[in-house]
Amino acid sequence: MNENAESLFDTDSRHSWNIQRFLSYHCKQSSAVLIHNTMTENGCEYRERVLTMDTMNPNVKRVEYAVRGPIVQRAVQIERELKMGIKKPFTEVIRANIGDCHAMGQKPITFFRQVLALCSYPDLLEDGKFPEDAKSRARRILQACGGGSLGAYSTSQGIEMIRQDIARYIERRDGGITCDPDNIYLSTGASDAIVTMLKLLVSGEGMSRTGVMISIPQYPLYSATLAELGAVQISYYLDEDNCWSLDISELRRALQEAKKHCSPRALCIINPGNPTGQVQSRQCIEGVIRFAAAEKLFLMADEVYQDNVYADGCKFHSFKKVLFEMGLEYSEKVELASFHSTSKCYMGECGFRGGYMEVVNLDPEVKVQLTKLVSVRLCPPVPGQALLDVVVNPPQPDEPSYDTFIKERTDTLATLAEKANMTQEILNQVPGIKCNPVQGAMYTFPRIHLPPKAILEAKKEQTPDMFYCMKLLEETGICLVPGSGFGQRDGTYHFRMTILPPKEKLKIVLAKIKEFHQHFMAQYS
Amino acid sequence: MNENAESLFDTDSRHSWNIQRFLSYHCKQSSAVLIHNTMTENGCEYRERVLTMDTMNPNVKRVEYAVRGPIVQRAVQIERELKMGIKKPFTEVIRANIGDCHAMGQKPITFFRQVLALCSYPDLLEDGKFPEDAKSRARRILQACGGGSLGAYSTSQGIEMIRQDIARYIERRDGGITCDPDNIYLSTGASDAIVTMLKLLVSGEGMSRTGVMISIPQYPLYSATLAELGAVQISYYLDEDNCWSLDISELRRALQEAKKHCSPRALCIINPGNPTGQVQSRQCIEGVIRFAAAEKLFLMADEVYQDNVYADGCKFHSFKKVLFEMGLEYSEKVELASFHSTSKCYMGECGFRGGYMEVVNLDPEVKVQLTKLVSVRLCPPVPGQALLDVVVNPPQPDEPSYDTFIKERTDTLATLAEKANMTQEILNQVPGIKCNPVQGAMYTFPRIHLPPKAILEAKKEQTPDMFYCMKLLEETGICLVPGSGFGQRDGTYHFRMTILPPKEKLKIVLAKIKEFHQHFMAQYS
Repeated sequence: MNENAESLFDTDSRHSWNIQRFLSYHCKQSSAVLIHNTMTENGCEYRERVLTMDTMNPNVKRVEYAVRGPIVQRAVQIERELKMGIKKPFTEVIRANIGDCHAMGQKPITFFRQVLALCSYPDLLEDGKFPEDAKSRARRILQACGGGSLGAYSTSQGIEMIRQDIARYIERRDGGITCDPDNIYLSTGASDAIVTMLKLLVSGEGMSRTGVMISIPQYPLYSATLAELGAVQISYYLDEDNCWSLDISELRRALQEAKKHCSPRALCIINPGNPTGQVQSRQCIEGVIRFAAAEKLFLMADEVYQDNVYADGCKFHSFKKVLFEMGLEYSEKVELASFHSTSKCYMGECGFRGGYMEVVNLDPEVKVQLTKLVSVRLCPPVPGQALLDVVVNPPQPDEPSYDTFIKERTDTLATLAEKANMTQEILNQVPGIKCNPVQGAMYTFPRIHLPPKAILEAKKEQTPDMFYCMKLLEETGICLVPGSGFGQRDGTYHFRMTILPPKEKLKIVLAKIKEFHQHFMAQYS
Repeated sequence: MNENAESLFDTDSRHSWNIQRFLSYHCKQSSAVLIHNTMTENGCEYRERVLTMDTMNPNVKRVEYAVRGPIVQRAVQIERELKMGIKKPFTEVIRANIGDCHAMGQKPITFFRQVLALCSYPDLLEDGKFPEDAKSRARRILQACGGGSLGAYSTSQGIEMIRQDIARYIERRDGGITCDPDNIYLSTGASDAIVTMLKLLVSGEGMSRTGVMISIPQYPLYSATLAELGAVQISYYLDEDNCWSLDISELRRALQEAKKHCSPRALCIINPGNPTGQVQSRQCIEGVIRFAAAEKLFLMADEVYQDNVYADGCKFHSFKKVLFEMGLEYSEKVELASFHSTSKCYMGECGFRGGYMEVVNLDPEVKVQLTKLVSVRLCPPVPGQALLDVVVNPPQPDEPSYDTFIKERTDTLATLAEKANMTQEILNQVPGIKCNPVQGAMYTFPRIHLPPKAILEAKKEQTPDMFYCMKLLEETGICLVPGSGFGQRDGTYHFRMTILPPKEKLKIVLAKIKEFHQHFMAQYS
């Protein structure tokens, strides 16, 4: 990176895609070369490109995705600078910006990886070293694959046997409420299924354009997808003063307002919450379902953190279960899609991009359309499907891998619970940081009270929380995501931080944040 | 399946989603139950669903994807019927409808699967049974993964080291023309990258709506994606009488016509061809590039069959190489995206959904938008990325796995070449079937001359080629795709058939088709 570019980056980074300007700088450099060359060749003729910022899809331009936004790109640069020997006040970048469990040292479940290795290279089935239960799972999965190979396409909805296993898993989870394997669609991570469902829901123009209710703060996949599809985002605010709980009257307010300019048709819920870490009570879920039924909204329940519940008195309740326990009036009426993934919980297998959704009360003709739509992409990754199969069909008490499996799962979840608690405790000791309990999921979303002088200083260039996080990154190497990337009430500032770094490292991270914050406050008071 | 439904299916299946009507029948049954229940509960109130055929995304309704369309769904039903013991004139369904290599018995490359097993379960790195080159590849891949695990997210563009390996692979393929790893984007199969690129290109309304040129016949991913994005499909016809070659004057005709009602901005080429099996000459590719340059079209080159070239005198020429050998006038001007995949060639690893695209001359600001867009889906499946890495970085002559690797690759490609030849020879012996040489890829797209009586009979219910293929399926168990799913000149009829069944089975398939066709001709003459 040359010096001019460096200084450009440092002094001009207002909006969330400020990095774009940094990159544009380089672009203009190389464009200039291009123009020059072309001019040499063809005299004065300069051929404009077909695909430019002016001609490209305007909806794509509107997409923002903070979790991998400019701060993360700056973190990558800093890592390169460290490698090049450039001195910094720290020796490594610590990425607490994304729920990337294994990257933060969480270990994969041995049994799952054994089965995947056996499926990848079936010669290992003859190897005495592998436990029998891993071998029998692998054989069963391979028998369900075309030609006995993970390399064959599956049906677009996902391998039938795996859908049956998922259905039985859901039935166990939901105390016996039936689940039809034909309502299960495997996907490339939960994101893929969420996008597919939103795609089906979006139609109309102007006043009749589909509006979709999403929480603020939200996981930015939702806002990004709505922007890409040109749908209307309807924001409802979670109640920070009440542990980020969902208030039905706030849903009502947001909906009434939205009805003036669009056609609200879906309501998205993330439970346990991302980025806010709350776990919804059963009562709250019932309220949401009643609201959706009364207002004719399609429910989308993002339940990828369903095993990540830590706080005493909190319990995960699936929307499906609550819906069915509310009686026929609801269970036969409310349309619901629920999403799950191999990326979170105790598995943390993000790289495999495994996931599924269950659809409930979906119009059968629409279901045919859904099946057709997913068929265009042929099938979800088969290794991810195989992984999902062992997640929903893990070792049983009479099987050789059971004890190890239970120990690994318990340890991982217990460590996460400990870290959730530690994060909240330490952050709440810092004057000017206020943090709700991390009841579940993998994140804390503390509020930071910034002095007016800092806000003024920041606003020259960027949002105050981006200013704060960028400064933290430059001074400590800790990479967080500014609250503005998830949405927050005007005039409030937050950051999202994962609880994933190993315990000892997390302690250091929290101590560094504490020290940074105090220094920051002193500097701008 | 009850009898009414059966007869509905048999007698009414006109359009390509006729299966939908079959399913609708069941839907209405269950809707009726729903209405009844709801009435019992709430008196006369019947709550309409939120998401119905009337309210759903109209673009999604327009999507068609024949490769997994109604004929394949019928094939699945027939398989179930066979399992239930229902007597048929055959004992198994043979799927020659989709390029699903492993499902048709093609064996995976041992070295690739060893590396994948080692990456999945790194304890195996201590196992003496694995060759050293497989271990060193696996170690290298794991070092490039977060936390040394396939379970970590990668950067959204794909693992940097793998992008470097791909760049070197492309440079070797293209005789040293440089490739920048930063122009490589890994993807979830090639389909994913093709959709992403089209998504960027689509904008405008009415006359200024983006038009995209695609060949007819085409691989239906293209038409499906254009329908979903609401872009304008511009069809140019391949010349069946000249081995499905591409004629520049036909491109010109199609473009001039399209300019009357849309804004043409991209030209898609599939080489080697799917479903048509032709391999483009260098001269033809040069013509296409000159045309794209003159008409300001963004080039999209689908080159997933680049190793699948069988015919004497045919050779694969990458668009990138030809472009750069045409001089600066082209190499610095023409925008190109080229696509590749782990699913085809000698690997046939469809289930892993590995793929990449290389972008050339992409506007640097648009590239930032592209990187942002792919970041919303987090990353392509990491096992597919790992697989791609060994594909582009296979065993070298001094490594222990080299001989086996070369033998396996050579055998697979030689067998495919033999089957390509056999398919064409046998089909051309049948009066009323005319089949171009299968120069490359994995398909034949023969023309079938149907007697007027058959056409008349068919048209009562469906397209004549669907009628033909459905009859073939019911009578022989062979599953092909009607030409109408790929597009064909009016009044001509074709089917697409893969050359993938094992040699002995392929012989039987071809003999059965021959016999069926003769019988069909006799019946309708």
